Amino acid sequence: MTISYIAETAGVSIPTVSKVVNGRSGVAADTRARVEALISEYGYRRTNRKNVMELVFSELEDMWGMEIIRGVERVARQQRVGVVLTEFGPSLDPVDHPMEDTLARRPACVVTVAQLSKEQRDQLQAKEIPFVVFDPTSELPDGVPFVGATNWAGGRSATRHLIELGHRRIAMIAGPDEILCCRARLDGYRSALEAAGLSMLPELVPRANLTREDGRVAALGLLSLHERPTAIFACNDPQALGVYQAARELGLRIPADLSVVGFDDLPVATLVDPPLTTVHQPLAEMAAVATELALALGRGEEPSRIGLELATTLTVRESTARPAPTGSSSRRHKPEGRQAT
Amino acid sequence: MTISYIAETAGVSIPTVSKVVNGRSGVAADTRARVEALISEYGYRRTNRKNVMELVFSELEDMWGMEIIRGVERVARQQRVGVVLTEFGPSLDPVDHPMEDTLARRPACVVTVAQLSKEQRDQLQAKEIPFVVFDPTSELPDGVPFVGATNWAGGRSATRHLIELGHRRIAMIAGPDEILCCRARLDGYRSALEAAGLSMLPELVPRANLTREDGRVAALGLLSLHERPTAIFACNDPQALGVYQAARELGLRIPADLSVVGFDDLPVATLVDPPLTTVHQPLAEMAAVATELALALGRGEEPSRIGLELATTLTVRESTARPAPTGSSSRRHKPEGRQAT
Repeated sequence: MTISYIAETAGVSIPTVSKVVNGRSGVAADTRARVEALISEYGYRRTNRKNVMELVFSELEDMWGMEIIRGVERVARQQRVGVVLTEFGPSLDPVDHPMEDTLARRPACVVTVAQLSKEQRDQLQAKEIPFVVFDPTSELPDGVPFVGATNWAGGRSATRHLIELGHRRIAMIAGPDEILCCRARLDGYRSALEAAGLSMLPELVPRANLTREDGRVAALGLLSLHERPTAIFACNDPQALGVYQAARELGLRIPADLSVVGFDDLPVATLVDPPLTTVHQPLAEMAAVATELALALGRGEEPSRIGLELATTLTVRESTARPAPTGSSSRRHKPEGRQAT
Repeated sequence: MTISYIAETAGVSIPTVSKVVNGRSGVAADTRARVEALISEYGYRRTNRKNVMELVFSELEDMWGMEIIRGVERVARQQRVGVVLTEFGPSLDPVDHPMEDTLARRPACVVTVAQLSKEQRDQLQAKEIPFVVFDPTSELPDGVPFVGATNWAGGRSATRHLIELGHRRIAMIAGPDEILCCRARLDGYRSALEAAGLSMLPELVPRANLTREDGRVAALGLLSLHERPTAIFACNDPQALGVYQAARELGLRIPADLSVVGFDDLPVATLVDPPLTTVHQPLAEMAAVATELALALGRGEEPSRIGLELATTLTVRESTARPAPTGSSSRRHKPEGRQAT
């Protein structure tokens, strides 16, 4: 039922119907009663569309995007809701109006991988479109629904794995401080070192952006140290692939001369040589949980938990091994155990 | 024809017309007949939503999907159309009704990566939802709009590149015969051989599915031949990565002992060691063109071209080189020229 249809049937103007719908004053009592009767008869109200939700990315990224999309689709399809995919990224052309277009589509709910600004969150709230933040990179006000991963625990278990293999000189390529999950991973690394009686050495913890090239540069620095680390824990998988590249350039073999652990478990982790030991983020699961939460909020339910982190798990492949005995770096050790993905 | 015009002409109220249109009860039989006659005379129909289109996949695939999604999004966003992402795949739960749900959403148009059945195409046509097939894998009836890539020319240029490097014993891992693009790539390979005065040897052309593991098995067969090929052209990139794996297992170095060419230029092609020489399919461009075409059809335009193939280009990286001189397979040759991606 459209607003113009109600207006025509009631014999009033569209703005009048709009005033009644929105509870504003300036409408004669009998007119209001007539419009309300029609609305209650035909069921018009500004509702969000129940059969469409939106999945918002900052930019559609190859490595992460598909896993997330798959998780959202799985749940949405079961509930027979269509998923509109939207980019809100900073690189958009100024003629684009992604938020405006999203609001105009009146989706039942939004799952956002993009980190919305406060203004954008307010706009959604004003239109009563509930949203869930996927893997927040910065702290959110209390009450903003989110689904993340246990980054601190993941950093801790990656580091503990290296310690258990016998490594003592373990470097970490830390990500940018302003990204929350990077800080959590770094703290997990430090926590595991401290639990083993080791201390975090500043020269073994360079900062680098979350790209392959920045990982390569950081690794070249680490591997040129007088006493180089025997293992490097990278803050994400692309950085770890940069470590691979640096190792090749320096003629170091992985894992014989250098163990490497990544974080994320992107599909590429199984395709590289050697397959990468990495902390698995359950992206598809996280996306599915975020979608369930968002759709429940869209139905007006009040879920008991609106912020949660799903567990990461260490996936041991072939890029980690015992450190070479001092002076015999050519002996190659295989990892002792392997965990299925 | 608007609903109010029908109502006025039939001498009934708009809600009555609405009831008839939506098949609801509460309308006298003669009134219903009068309204239906007018609807059939004046052609009133429920129009499609102009601000939403659908992108249909069979299954959301990591390696190809994101490029395609990006191309569709770019064009749709410019035209301020939201993109609903849908899976029509065979692995769907029977409780899912993807086509029914798509029809109910009344999108302006559909771009389909899934190969729709004739029945599905008929359903879309019956609802006047125009669609464009992305990279058809089988022959379509004339008049069905599609956007593909020049697979034959791609197969030809991959093979010619190997011939120009000096290879004479060039194998091709062919894909399944029923997939149209595989047949085109194979014919391109044969055409390039014939143009160089070489003939296609059946033992150098095994069939394999388009996966890494099938590529590996086919390559192991080829590399166990008494006189093994010095170069292998794989029908797609995952197969080519299977060739990498087979070469490693047999202790053969790429490209010193074996040149490898893939097809697709997936993002992973730059991440493997050595980076893969492959035929670039302009997936994002193809998707953008398909979307422009679909949206034009959705606006009721009649584009002059409704079926087209975009050009593939050979991207030379480091997996191809001159063949080793007979008896000195340890000398490593670098490719002579490199083409930027």
